[in-house]
Amino acid sequence: MSLIGRSIRRKEDPPLVTGKGMFAADVSFPRQLHMRIVRSPFAHGLIRSIDTQTASALPGVVAIWTGDDVADIPPIDFRLTRIEGLESYRQHVLAQNRVRYVGEPVAAVFATDAYVAEDAADLVDLEIEELPVTLDASDAPTEFEPGRLTEPAVIRKGYGDVDGAFGAAHAVVELDLSIGRHSGVPMETRGAIGRYDAARDILEMYGAAKVPHWNRDQLARMLGRDRTAMHLHEGHVGGGFGIRGELYPEDVLVCAAALRLGRPVKWIEDRREHLIAANHSRQQCHHVRAAIDVEGRILGIENEFFHDQGAYVRTHAATVPDLAAAMLLGPYRIPNYRAVGHIRLTNKTPAGTYRAPGRFESTFVRERLMDAIAARAGITPVEARRRNLIASAEMPYKRPIDTLGTEVVLDSGEYAGLLDKALKRIGWTTLQDELKSRRAKGELVGAGLGIFVEKSGLGPFDNVKITVDPGGAVEIVTGAASVGQGVETVIAQICADTLGVDFDRIRVIHGQTDRIDEGLGAFASRVTVMTGEATRLGALKVRQKATEMAAELLQCTVDELGIVNGEIRKTAKASGPSISLAEIARHLLPTSKTRGSREPGLTGEGWFFSNHMNYPYGVHVAVVSLDRETGHVAVERYLVAYDIGRAVNPMLVEGQIAGGFAQGLGGTLFEEFTYDERGEPMNVTFADYLMPTAREVPALDVLICEDAPSPLNPLGLKGAGEGGTNAVGAAIASAIDDALGVPGAVTQLPVTPQRMRDILDRVLPEKR
Amino acid sequence: MSLIGRSIRRKEDPPLVTGKGMFAADVSFPRQLHMRIVRSPFAHGLIRSIDTQTASALPGVVAIWTGDDVADIPPIDFRLTRIEGLESYRQHVLAQNRVRYVGEPVAAVFATDAYVAEDAADLVDLEIEELPVTLDASDAPTEFEPGRLTEPAVIRKGYGDVDGAFGAAHAVVELDLSIGRHSGVPMETRGAIGRYDAARDILEMYGAAKVPHWNRDQLARMLGRDRTAMHLHEGHVGGGFGIRGELYPEDVLVCAAALRLGRPVKWIEDRREHLIAANHSRQQCHHVRAAIDVEGRILGIENEFFHDQGAYVRTHAATVPDLAAAMLLGPYRIPNYRAVGHIRLTNKTPAGTYRAPGRFESTFVRERLMDAIAARAGITPVEARRRNLIASAEMPYKRPIDTLGTEVVLDSGEYAGLLDKALKRIGWTTLQDELKSRRAKGELVGAGLGIFVEKSGLGPFDNVKITVDPGGAVEIVTGAASVGQGVETVIAQICADTLGVDFDRIRVIHGQTDRIDEGLGAFASRVTVMTGEATRLGALKVRQKATEMAAELLQCTVDELGIVNGEIRKTAKASGPSISLAEIARHLLPTSKTRGSREPGLTGEGWFFSNHMNYPYGVHVAVVSLDRETGHVAVERYLVAYDIGRAVNPMLVEGQIAGGFAQGLGGTLFEEFTYDERGEPMNVTFADYLMPTAREVPALDVLICEDAPSPLNPLGLKGAGEGGTNAVGAAIASAIDDALGVPGAVTQLPVTPQRMRDILDRVLPEKR
Repeated sequence: MSLIGRSIRRKEDPPLVTGKGMFAADVSFPRQLHMRIVRSPFAHGLIRSIDTQTASALPGVVAIWTGDDVADIPPIDFRLTRIEGLESYRQHVLAQNRVRYVGEPVAAVFATDAYVAEDAADLVDLEIEELPVTLDASDAPTEFEPGRLTEPAVIRKGYGDVDGAFGAAHAVVELDLSIGRHSGVPMETRGAIGRYDAARDILEMYGAAKVPHWNRDQLARMLGRDRTAMHLHEGHVGGGFGIRGELYPEDVLVCAAALRLGRPVKWIEDRREHLIAANHSRQQCHHVRAAIDVEGRILGIENEFFHDQGAYVRTHAATVPDLAAAMLLGPYRIPNYRAVGHIRLTNKTPAGTYRAPGRFESTFVRERLMDAIAARAGITPVEARRRNLIASAEMPYKRPIDTLGTEVVLDSGEYAGLLDKALKRIGWTTLQDELKSRRAKGELVGAGLGIFVEKSGLGPFDNVKITVDPGGAVEIVTGAASVGQGVETVIAQICADTLGVDFDRIRVIHGQTDRIDEGLGAFASRVTVMTGEATRLGALKVRQKATEMAAELLQCTVDELGIVNGEIRKTAKASGPSISLAEIARHLLPTSKTRGSREPGLTGEGWFFSNHMNYPYGVHVAVVSLDRETGHVAVERYLVAYDIGRAVNPMLVEGQIAGGFAQGLGGTLFEEFTYDERGEPMNVTFADYLMPTAREVPALDVLICEDAPSPLNPLGLKGAGEGGTNAVGAAIASAIDDALGVPGAVTQLPVTPQRMRDILDRVLPEKR
Repeated sequence: MSLIGRSIRRKEDPPLVTGKGMFAADVSFPRQLHMRIVRSPFAHGLIRSIDTQTASALPGVVAIWTGDDVADIPPIDFRLTRIEGLESYRQHVLAQNRVRYVGEPVAAVFATDAYVAEDAADLVDLEIEELPVTLDASDAPTEFEPGRLTEPAVIRKGYGDVDGAFGAAHAVVELDLSIGRHSGVPMETRGAIGRYDAARDILEMYGAAKVPHWNRDQLARMLGRDRTAMHLHEGHVGGGFGIRGELYPEDVLVCAAALRLGRPVKWIEDRREHLIAANHSRQQCHHVRAAIDVEGRILGIENEFFHDQGAYVRTHAATVPDLAAAMLLGPYRIPNYRAVGHIRLTNKTPAGTYRAPGRFESTFVRERLMDAIAARAGITPVEARRRNLIASAEMPYKRPIDTLGTEVVLDSGEYAGLLDKALKRIGWTTLQDELKSRRAKGELVGAGLGIFVEKSGLGPFDNVKITVDPGGAVEIVTGAASVGQGVETVIAQICADTLGVDFDRIRVIHGQTDRIDEGLGAFASRVTVMTGEATRLGALKVRQKATEMAAELLQCTVDELGIVNGEIRKTAKASGPSISLAEIARHLLPTSKTRGSREPGLTGEGWFFSNHMNYPYGVHVAVVSLDRETGHVAVERYLVAYDIGRAVNPMLVEGQIAGGFAQGLGGTLFEEFTYDERGEPMNVTFADYLMPTAREVPALDVLICEDAPSPLNPLGLKGAGEGGTNAVGAAIASAIDDALGVPGAVTQLPVTPQRMRDILDRVLPEKR
């Protein structure tokens, strides 16, 4: 029985549920030092002096570094989506003369004890001359610093004759929309441990995540080492969400310090730090216009937006605005399109990618637009969408734009079919009647929906090495990373099926740069697609080698043989002689006499190359009720219908969608980083930064569909990581509008209680 | 300029000479426990009870294990030279009911501190019923235990008609000879650290040496784990010498304890322990006879010997007697041969291999025999040897016996030529005159020699993985081990030459089982031959891949290209366009557009298979003077002439020979493990076990020759590890005879001052 498609339990869980997890904080080495970062208390200023004398005198303090001590280390480079003009806005690991956000690392204290380090950090005396701050990305006229504009770059995408489309339009709808600044907040904060093994001349970093190989290359480059002399080790993480595992100043500092101070250096972020130091995300405001015909069909879209990048451009470079520009088109036929995205620097924490980057934002914008089109055309929101959806017959559907360096070709999709299924699942017609009758009783209840296209399986490559050892155990080594998504389980399921071995005999090694030369890590919902297919290809190689050896030993042809539970035998007879993969592995040992001229080892390497992403898609449906007094938006029902092409492990897909939904809900109703007029962050504890809790997150209905397998890989796989997040803002905004009976009421996320009250005051003053 | 043949400095030395070495004692982990072994105080006895109550009550003691706690762990298996009958004499990691030598592990104490562990071990109360002991291998009539004979196995080798040869002999010479029990005594004692990473389910052992991969497999098997879940890590060692790195009870115990107690477990041997717990070696007594013709030519040899194995058969199984039987033939033409080696168990520390195992012993025996033949035939010792040496024209010279599972085919040799060179180098004729005149003045001075054949390059395979990273750094990963012999340097020299890269850009990774699946380690003088040739083959593959890529980029053919210092250019023009290996590596990255359909990575794997050992050979010449009063044997001059086929790094070969000579000298004149009548070891400190110091070791003359490169590998390599040790006993015994003017005076090693005085009393009573 095939394992692919079965909701088997996660390989990852036993150590986690038995308290044996190894998070960064659990990693320690004898003689380690603890690092504490001294952070800028000002949002913008010139560093006049840093007095470390008192701090250095504290017993246990080994060293204190300021910008001068690391001036030789180049700024942190871009990993993705380089565009011209961004380079000079990269961040140095410690501020060089000028600080640009509250929380910017200014000095690093190294001490024998974490508490001493923290006390010493408090004693570092900073003299900083404050400068005026820029806090609004869409209104940033001043120079970032003399000679450097605040607008370093513009993303432009588009095709067709947009002006012609608007000129010929029956009507134009136009919206100003904004998405609030929030971010991934993992269960545990970040951490990193640098360790230099002088005996072997190997610099190690523990606490790596997401992209260990890329970070290895960067750390090696920044510290002037060979990449073979730099090993990164991933541990457990309580979620990555895009923000964890990018290369941050602290990662570089622990490595540089381990090397230069000759002792292991450990850094564990505290929660306040996390909320000002780890990447923020999302903050964008859009001015969007659609030209439509008389039936509400879209003739063209114009999308101008301002991306609030914060104080520096970090590793993602232009990824978020690039995706926001490209993915705004969603599942619809848009004949003409123009996007202009302004990447603006502000005196806030630098921003990066966060689960569904650019899509949470652009789906909110697009689906707000669809609701507006429906209102303008006098049709229902469902009908407005239906009229514009790309038909399955049009697949693959090539869009003349690119994103993340790949051409956008929607590989497969039954968009209308999924919409039908979603509406049926939620009981849309009945629901409308129910809501109508509840509204008649005075309740503010409504339903809304959002349709979206996700992207997944970013290449350009992935590879695995598979080895069957002489005991029959299977080891898969991959350069993918595990950030909680269940990579071990999924990879093992694919391998078990392809190779014909017991799932429990498979061990998946990931995130260890000393075990495999190359790897792209875990981001962009890529792992199941890319690593999964690489695993299938590798397992096929192992299978071929095994059956060839077995055919010789059993005196038959390879075609006659099958493998079940690690036993190879003639498929025609279930009871014939068999030979186990373990035995084959022993026949293939370098010392074996039966091996013949075969290369030793029952091993195979699988490389999968792909120049195109593939495109899962989904429908979110929300039912909300509003509290007139408090402004609370209660989500009564929520459905995520998602076509994933093929679900390797539906339970894990559901888990991904549920987790993603909770995060989308946070960004839609609760979570927001705000700043006062001096650029002081107002949300540095969980009392101020509101995470949705079990109380706020409703029971979720998930409908996983497999109607449109990807033609880009034989298993038809697409990614599941971000579909739960993508359309939450869109669907809930639509539902709030519906509850209010006022299309277009919601123009800004998050819809915090205060904002909801403001909307109520504005649109329904009589009902307050 | 070729690097092969140059005495460049060791890659290994910078961390060692700057205090950055990482020996087992330097490895520590947080929360680690320290293990202390409770050892048997009796040479033979039944364990009546072990009371751990008082010991367990000591604060800091976490666990105390006795035999019952590890009864599920099988005994330590054999690595080499299995012969029938030995299996039941393997050692359990803790004594099971019966102790068989003083020092046998009886219990293991695990405590939070090494001192607490030692104190607690003293408090473990053993009640043992003493049994009679067996101490003489040649006279061991009693049963080892009821139903198990003390003679578990016999090695038999031979060919021809030995009885016929003796029947037809002109004369028969016959000797009884014995070699004392001694062993390798490295600078630092053994150590092992077990660590279980529950998060990844990986059991690690640090402090591995010599054969990490084999030990990985055994530890995995003994502890019921997949070998992929067991990683061994080699560190620095102050010499291996054959004894370090074999799998010992302590290694298994730290791993089992790390797994079962859930904390890292560290064990560092103390010196007393080392002298009773680590493998002893050498102890053998031979009754040897030679049938000769009238001219002193050998017609046949009969070699019966008793091998004192000690209390258990350890990993080497029958290796030492196997080699002693096969290698006794040396460089001579022996038409008929019979060897019968009795492997005898005694109540002493178990024995294993030690530098030149079976050859130090058999060369002593054979060369004593040659001196006796000379005396009997009335010719000089040199002439007796010359008449029997195999001629170079007879090469390759197949002997109809095997050893270490390989057929003995002497691959190449200019034996007589090397003898001539050695005699010339020492000035043999002049020397004879000098000695004559000194003897005339009453001095007891003499010269002697020993000729021998070594073996090296044991297969059956070795492999390396070579990677050029995108920065141009070269990494070679090998399953060989570094025990001080200079493997990194030699491998890097071969790679640098073959690939055309800078020696300093090469990094050699060895002894890390997580970096390469297979490896045979470092023993039997195999590494330079086997790993060296695997490196050459791997480097050729990398070279081929690089030049093919370069030929495409430079638009020429591969044949036109050469590589110098990592730059590929047309060989015809030194100043033409070039492309570096680093650039090629970048072209071959998985993300590269120029890579085409090539497999990603500038990498190559080299596998070298060999079913035959090859045979270096040497001549030792010693000049000694004897002190009538003290019995001291002063070595005035010593020459080792050694034909190594091809010396990759002559300085390292000289170092190997010098170190090996010092150890041979120890076994010849000083070092001996002796026991009292109850089996109590008498040499448990350096006050009692006499190591030669700088005072006793004379300046050594080394003559490295390359007259007979091995035809078994293209570079002609043979091994250098053991040639300095091999004939020291033989040559010094011969010189002592010469000094005394009494052929055959020395019949036993070591010739301690006391034994020398006894010899003087016996053979020259008038001179005392």
